[in-house]
Amino acid sequence: MSGSKTSSGNFFEDFRLGQELVHATPRTVTTGDAALYTALYGSRFPLTSAASFARATGLPDTPLDDLLVFHVVFGKTVPDVSLNAVANLGYAECRFLKPVYPGATLSTRSEVIGLKENSNGKTGVVYVRSIGRDETGEAVLDYVRWVMVRKRDEATPAPAPVVPTLKAALDPSELVMPAGFEPDGYDTLLAGSPHLFDDYSVGERIDHVDGMTIEEAEHMLATRLYQNTSRVHFNQHVEGKGRFGRRLIYGGHIISLARALSFNGLGNGCFVVAINGGSHTSPTFAGDTIYAWSEILDKAEAGPKAGYLRIRTCAAKNHACTDYPDRDADGKRRAEIVLELDYWVMMPRVQR
Amino acid sequence: MSGSKTSSGNFFEDFRLGQELVHATPRTVTTGDAALYTALYGSRFPLTSAASFARATGLPDTPLDDLLVFHVVFGKTVPDVSLNAVANLGYAECRFLKPVYPGATLSTRSEVIGLKENSNGKTGVVYVRSIGRDETGEAVLDYVRWVMVRKRDEATPAPAPVVPTLKAALDPSELVMPAGFEPDGYDTLLAGSPHLFDDYSVGERIDHVDGMTIEEAEHMLATRLYQNTSRVHFNQHVEGKGRFGRRLIYGGHIISLARALSFNGLGNGCFVVAINGGSHTSPTFAGDTIYAWSEILDKAEAGPKAGYLRIRTCAAKNHACTDYPDRDADGKRRAEIVLELDYWVMMPRVQR
Amino acid sequence: MSGSKTSSGNFFEDFRLGQELVHATPRTVTTGDAALYTALYGSRFPLTSAASFARATGLPDTPLDDLLVFHVVFGKTVPDVSLNAVANLGYAECRFLKPVYPGATLSTRSEVIGLKENSNGKTGVVYVRSIGRDETGEAVLDYVRWVMVRKRDEATPAPAPVVPTLKAALDPSELVMPAGFEPDGYDTLLAGSPHLFDDYSVGERIDHVDGMTIEEAEHMLATRLYQNTSRVHFNQHVEGKGRFGRRLIYGGHIISLARALSFNGLGNGCFVVAINGGSHTSPTFAGDTIYAWSEILDKAEAGPKAGYLRIRTCAAKNHACTDYPDRDADGKRRAEIVLELDYWVMMPRVQR
Repeated sequence: MSGSKTSSGNFFEDFRLGQELVHATPRTVTTGDAALYTALYGSRFPLTSAASFARATGLPDTPLDDLLVFHVVFGKTVPDVSLNAVANLGYAECRFLKPVYPGATLSTRSEVIGLKENSNGKTGVVYVRSIGRDETGEAVLDYVRWVMVRKRDEATPAPAPVVPTLKAALDPSELVMPAGFEPDGYDTLLAGSPHLFDDYSVGERIDHVDGMTIEEAEHMLATRLYQNTSRVHFNQHVEGKGRFGRRLIYGGHIISLARALSFNGLGNGCFVVAINGGSHTSPTFAGDTIYAWSEILDKAEAGPKAGYLRIRTCAAKNHACTDYPDRDADGKRRAEIVLELDYWVMMPRVQR
Repeated sequence: MSGSKTSSGNFFEDFRLGQELVHATPRTVTTGDAALYTALYGSRFPLTSAASFARATGLPDTPLDDLLVFHVVFGKTVPDVSLNAVANLGYAECRFLKPVYPGATLSTRSEVIGLKENSNGKTGVVYVRSIGRDETGEAVLDYVRWVMVRKRDEATPAPAPVVPTLKAALDPSELVMPAGFEPDGYDTLLAGSPHLFDDYSVGERIDHVDGMTIEEAEHMLATRLYQNTSRVHFNQHVEGKGRFGRRLIYGGHIISLARALSFNGLGNGCFVVAINGGSHTSPTFAGDTIYAWSEILDKAEAGPKAGYLRIRTCAAKNHACTDYPDRDADGKRRAEIVLELDYWVMMPRVQR
Repeated sequence: MSGSKTSSGNFFEDFRLGQELVHATPRTVTTGDAALYTALYGSRFPLTSAASFARATGLPDTPLDDLLVFHVVFGKTVPDVSLNAVANLGYAECRFLKPVYPGATLSTRSEVIGLKENSNGKTGVVYVRSIGRDETGEAVLDYVRWVMVRKRDEATPAPAPVVPTLKAALDPSELVMPAGFEPDGYDTLLAGSPHLFDDYSVGERIDHVDGMTIEEAEHMLATRLYQNTSRVHFNQHVEGKGRFGRRLIYGGHIISLARALSFNGLGNGCFVVAINGGSHTSPTFAGDTIYAWSEILDKAEAGPKAGYLRIRTCAAKNHACTDYPDRDADGKRRAEIVLELDYWVMMPRVQR
């Protein structure tokens, strides 16, 4: 009798190639969410902080932080895609297509674009392309992610394996300049950083200096704000008996923290326009202090007034990034690294 | 000299039958409160999550969660009614009369409807009927609660005992359909649950599966958001020397958590329309993990398109509800049960 | 290569007398910030709680808490003024010039009004007058603060010492009545306190009774909400090895907590109109329980309907203020005192 009403999520054999998943729980994002986002990460990027600053650059209002939008759009996919996930394996080709303003209602749909059963017959990898849309139906975000999902029944025959070809990085020509943004009105003094697009060099590395310690209440407030239902973040009664003995922090919380820390050194990287990929290389727990450093991987002009910086940001736990902790000689990441994120930001070239 | 300016709350002999209490601190509720409520409980009920969803069902905007309204209205009564309470004994006949939207200003008045001194001469039971109104003066919520309050002076003679007759449960005919709600526009796909009113049977039990661990910061943020001044929730310096050695979590925090957990299994129970009664059977503390299960107690049609489900939800601490923890053979509740809540929700019968 | 992009803040020799500092990160304050502020401190002052109450007193809307405005305006100065501060020495002549409503965008500029190198040649004291303005350019707040800042290079010659003359307290004639406020519409019943301006006497002391325990998540959420980047509040990895072994709580968090506690006894002190000075006499840490008591230092009429009370509020940690903890016979503050704040509040004289 029970169980029938309760969703137990999808198992590997529930996914079919080409299947469209209409995710539940559309979400209106508001200035309340923006305030909480500031309280959670202390972000100082000026466009998301001040309406006056946003309007001076041609925007109608203060946009919501791109990563807040990402987390909300992503959160909707969890009950359908990753409730029975053994591992979140990766994401790619994530583009931010349109700034989102308070009052917008976000919803998400996904298409299954790849399926590959693992040789153990117990799990399989599911690839989905997810699109977040606002209430007008316009896409604000799309991305691909792939997760390893349990099979309900090992005896179910494996589907024909299909693995999509994914780009290592989006090409600058595929990036979308945030609609309405006019770099002419951008004021570097008020933005808090004098360094513009042309001041950065490929290969340059920046230690973002500051560290931020995470509390249980903080990551849980954040993850619930995103309506992300992944159980490992919330239930100490179960996790206390598990592999780590602790609740795991949602990887996106670390992404947002690293982005906020990156303000110190990349303060004019005012929009995240794409995420090429990311690896959560080590789990993080309450009590960990997160630091970050970045490397400029690539640059691309976007007309005379703005450009795109491709950045690799590494976050480390309980280890200041003065030594730019990275991979060892044999390519193995150092244990303190918890996140490696490859993304494009838009940065103005001119100053008012 | 001091003390005269500081409110020490009312004692048993300060209450008179028929007395009206005008509670202080009217409160404008906003999208900021709604965002915090989502961050605190992770609620996914669609009407309170998305303006587009709410509008499709005929509502003018995203209503605030019914229980947020309850907590705000309730919080106002604490300084006058329960600051010197020995125990919150119960509540009954709670009806939600009108959806509340961001921007509404809530205030509360109570009438003393019963008084009964205890035989020990040290305490007495005070019954109040409280009405929460919005800024137009329209009632949004009414309920009865009774608390055991200390006497200031044991020598004060007892008043004539008056104990109001309270209903064990509201009759379906007394329930108020949320104004403007049109089930025709309700989309079960976006709501995240296919199960509608006619799919539930009286006697059916549902384990809501998930567990949520509570942190000190979370329950204190919530209880302050509701401007509930009950001291036991906030002061570790005092509570550390008390009976439990810990701050007690506001019972309403557990109600909201149980309601949010109940989404998994009762996802289309989109409005709480009444609370028949509730018992906080065991205290909860930071670090506890809350689980919940529900039983359908009764059903009543509300026209061809919606119905009311009477639900008993039990919350348990540090105990998964796969075994539906309940009363023993002798009627005694199992120790892990922290809340038993008897309430009516409105659920659509049709799907778009 | 690195370091050049990262701001390391100003050192003593970077400041010049008369220099204007345009602080970064303008900030639009919203109802989201107001909700968080309520959740963080549980404030019950009615003007900031209810739009209906604010409108009845002639205001166009619910103003934001004066101290929220203070913290936001103050936070902007940290990256330029106090990132390399050894100590925050004091503040003075702080006037609240105009109520701030949701939607306003706050920004801050400071002028260096004093410089005095210390005799050790390693540090110096910097005095700045900071002005917070809204998006129309009107000043909402101004104040002086002075901090002890490290020199980058001890060999740099000392500037000619200039120490501004600062008032011990603002004169009532310098205080600004909040624009639009009409005491006629003030309802003491809804405000929750019957005591008005004429009920208070100079020398009167009030124990605010209640205590509030602070959690790490709470003070960090608050301090990030204010975009205050002072590192000692956030990084346990570093602070754990430091003098206290703990993250320090932002002094302004204690001010806000003491103000919220002061409602019980000073409930109609509805606006803070000035801060004459404040001393954070002892550090506070997560786990501390804050209590407060106040003394009326002075009174000044502001016409027939309102007046100003000059108040000294002392906050103590882990010590109930029934004994009004204060200075010893030799003028030394008792160890439990963490804050001494000297300020003016506006309080109505009439009741509706």
